[in-house]
Amino acid sequence: MDKVDAEARKRAAAILREKLIPLIKDLKAGEPLKLVIPKRTLSNTMLDPEKGILILKDEKLERHLLDAGEARRFMQTILMASIIYQALVENEYPTIRDLYYRGKHTLQYRDLEGKVREENTWDEQQESDAVLRDIEVMTNLLREEMLILSKEKGKMVGDMRIRSGPDVIDLSKLGHGAYAIESTPDFIEFLDYNAEFVLVVEKDAVFQQLHRIGFWRQYKCLLITGAGQPDRATRRLVRRLNEELGLPVYVLTDSDPYGWNIYSVFKVGSITLSYESERLATPKARFLGVSMTDIFGDKKKKPYLTEEERKNFIIKAKDEDIKRAQDLQKYSWFQTPKWKKEIDLFLEKRAKLEIEALVGKGLKFLAYKYLPEKIQTGDWIE
Amino acid sequence: MDKVDAEARKRAAAILREKLIPLIKDLKAGEPLKLVIPKRTLSNTMLDPEKGILILKDEKLERHLLDAGEARRFMQTILMASIIYQALVENEYPTIRDLYYRGKHTLQYRDLEGKVREENTWDEQQESDAVLRDIEVMTNLLREEMLILSKEKGKMVGDMRIRSGPDVIDLSKLGHGAYAIESTPDFIEFLDYNAEFVLVVEKDAVFQQLHRIGFWRQYKCLLITGAGQPDRATRRLVRRLNEELGLPVYVLTDSDPYGWNIYSVFKVGSITLSYESERLATPKARFLGVSMTDIFGDKKKKPYLTEEERKNFIIKAKDEDIKRAQDLQKYSWFQTPKWKKEIDLFLEKRAKLEIEALVGKGLKFLAYKYLPEKIQTGDWIE
Repeated sequence: MDKVDAEARKRAAAILREKLIPLIKDLKAGEPLKLVIPKRTLSNTMLDPEKGILILKDEKLERHLLDAGEARRFMQTILMASIIYQALVENEYPTIRDLYYRGKHTLQYRDLEGKVREENTWDEQQESDAVLRDIEVMTNLLREEMLILSKEKGKMVGDMRIRSGPDVIDLSKLGHGAYAIESTPDFIEFLDYNAEFVLVVEKDAVFQQLHRIGFWRQYKCLLITGAGQPDRATRRLVRRLNEELGLPVYVLTDSDPYGWNIYSVFKVGSITLSYESERLATPKARFLGVSMTDIFGDKKKKPYLTEEERKNFIIKAKDEDIKRAQDLQKYSWFQTPKWKKEIDLFLEKRAKLEIEALVGKGLKFLAYKYLPEKIQTGDWIE
Repeated sequence: MDKVDAEARKRAAAILREKLIPLIKDLKAGEPLKLVIPKRTLSNTMLDPEKGILILKDEKLERHLLDAGEARRFMQTILMASIIYQALVENEYPTIRDLYYRGKHTLQYRDLEGKVREENTWDEQQESDAVLRDIEVMTNLLREEMLILSKEKGKMVGDMRIRSGPDVIDLSKLGHGAYAIESTPDFIEFLDYNAEFVLVVEKDAVFQQLHRIGFWRQYKCLLITGAGQPDRATRRLVRRLNEELGLPVYVLTDSDPYGWNIYSVFKVGSITLSYESERLATPKARFLGVSMTDIFGDKKKKPYLTEEERKNFIIKAKDEDIKRAQDLQKYSWFQTPKWKKEIDLFLEKRAKLEIEALVGKGLKFLAYKYLPEKIQTGDWIE
C-alpha cells in the first residue's frame, strides 16, 4: 500500500464524513434534508484582482430532498458521494468515467397511487460529472485528492529530483524519454533541482525536439508539455513549480487564438470551471511566444522571420480564428496594452504561425537563438 | 552529443548517400535521371502468411526527371532527401511537420518561351509526407532511424531496466508516473527484467488505474498504453518486446469495432502503410478483451456481467459501428472462427462495452479477477 495515497484517503474520507453525517442526524431528527453547495454559475465567478485567478464568490445554493424539482439532483449528489467514499475506504482508484458506470442503475419506486415506477440514477456522464463538481466545491477537495484518476498526457524533464509515491525519480536521467506526469501531482514532493525557469511547450513534438537537443540542460530549465489543451495534472504541477519554488513560467504556443487560449488556461483557468483555478491556475505565467511581433516586428524590434519566410510559413486565419480572437478580447486579462497590440495585429494581418515553422528555420535557431533571446530581453507578454 | 544518436546519424547518412550519389554520376555522364522506388499501392501489398504481417511485394516504380508528369514529384523527393541529409549531418532533429516547413518555398524558372514562372515545392503536408514515405521505402530506413521525431503519447511501467540515450531507467521506480516512450524506440536497449507478459491497454485512464493499484508488480507484467490509436513508437516497442524477449503480448480494448481496429493496428499494421508493418507490427499479439463472450457468455463460458449490469453498461452500436465491423470482416486476419463469432455476435446484439464499465464493477474485479482469469484460462483471440 502506498503511504501517500493511504494518508490522502483518510483525509478525504474524513472531510466527506464531516460534510454528510449531519444529514443522517437531520434525518433521525425528522428535519427536512438539504445540501448547501457553493454556486458554480458565471455570475458567482470573479477574477480575484490580487491573485489574478478566477474564483467563486460567496453565493450558495440549497438543494432540498423534499422539493420535487431538486430531489433527483439531491439523490445523485448523495449517490456520487457514497460511491466516492466507498472507493476511498476500499482502496479503489476510480475515474470520472467509471464513477458514471458505478452509479448508473435503475431505481424502482411506488408513486402516490401505489404504481411501480422506474427512474435511472443518471443517463449521461454529463450528469454524473456535474454532481462530482458539486462535491468538489462542497468539500473543497479536488477530485484528485479523492484519489479519482484520469487520462494524463503531460510530460516533464529537467535537472530535478522528485518523490512520487514510494520512489525518487531523477528527471534528468530519463534518456530520450520523459516523465509522464502522474494523475495526482499534489502528492509529488519536490526534492532538489538545478533550474532557473520552467518552459511549457504546447506541442509534444517540439518538446521531444527541445529535449533531444538538450535544451533544458544547456539553459537550466524544467521542460514541460501539456500536449495541446493541458490536462488538470499538468496545470497543477506548473502552478506548484511557480508558487512553491518561485520559478518563472514561460509558455510557448503556436501564434494563433488557439495557442493564446492554451496560455490563458494555464494562467487563469477555464472560465466554466473557475472553482478549479484557485488550485490549478498560474497567474504569473508569461506568454513567451510565438508572438505577432516575432513574425512582423515593430518599431523597437526586428522580426524573426524574413519576408520570404513569412510568405512560406504563414497560414491564413479562418473565420473561426477571427471569431475566437474576438471572444478572447472580451476577457479582462487580454485587455492589457501588449495583448491588445497582439490581438489587433492578428486581426489586421489575419495571419497564424505554428511553432514548427520556426523550427523550419532550424531547431538550433529555436533552441539557441529565439528562446534564450526572448527570455534574456524580457520579450514576453504577461 | 548522444552517442547512440551519433551512430544512427552516420548510418542513415551513409545509406542516403549510397542511394542518391549514383544520380550525380548519371547527371555528369549525361544520363537521364530516375529514381527506383518500391510501390506503396494496395495491389503491391500482401499479408505474409508466415510472418502474419502486411508487406510490400516486389513491384517498383520509376520516377523520371525528364517526364513532365513526374518531374515535380522527382524534385520533391530529392528536396526531401537533401533536407533529411542536411538535418542528419547538422545534428538536427526534425519532425514531419517541420520537414514540410523546411522544404516549403517557391521555385522560379523560365519556361520554353523564356517567361519567368513560379512553382511551389509543395503546398500541403500531405505532399511532403508522401515523399518522406517514398524515401523510407527506398532506403528501407524508418523515419525514426533518420532521427525524425514526432509527437508521442505511449507510456510504460514494469519491473524492467532499459538504457535510453546515455541513461539507465528503472521502469519500476517511477512512482505514480510512467516512462513516456521515446520517439526512437529502436535505440532503447533492454537490460534486465522480471516480467512474464506485456499488457497493452487502449485507454490511458485504465493504464493509470492498473498502475496505481500495482497490477504489473503483482502479476509480473510490463504495462503499456498507446492512449487510443497507438503511435509508431508504441507499436515498435511492443513488437520489440515480443520479438526480442519472447514476451506474450495481450491487448485490452473497449469491446467495439474501434477497439478491434486498435488491436489490428498492433497486430498487423495499418493497411495503407504496409511498408511500416514489417517493423512495427506484432503478429503474435493476442486480443484479450473485452470480448462479446465476456459480456454475453457462450456455451462454455459464464458471462462476466449479470443481466442487470448488461442493462446498465451496454451502449447501443451506431450505424457507423456496424459499418466499421463489416469493413473489418473483410480483412483476412478477422476471418478466423473466433473472430467470426465475435463480430457476428456484435452484429446480432448491436452492443458495445467500454473497459470502464468493467471497472464500474470495481477496479479490483478488473485487476484481480477478470484479467488474470482470462490470461490463465487462455481466453483470448488471436
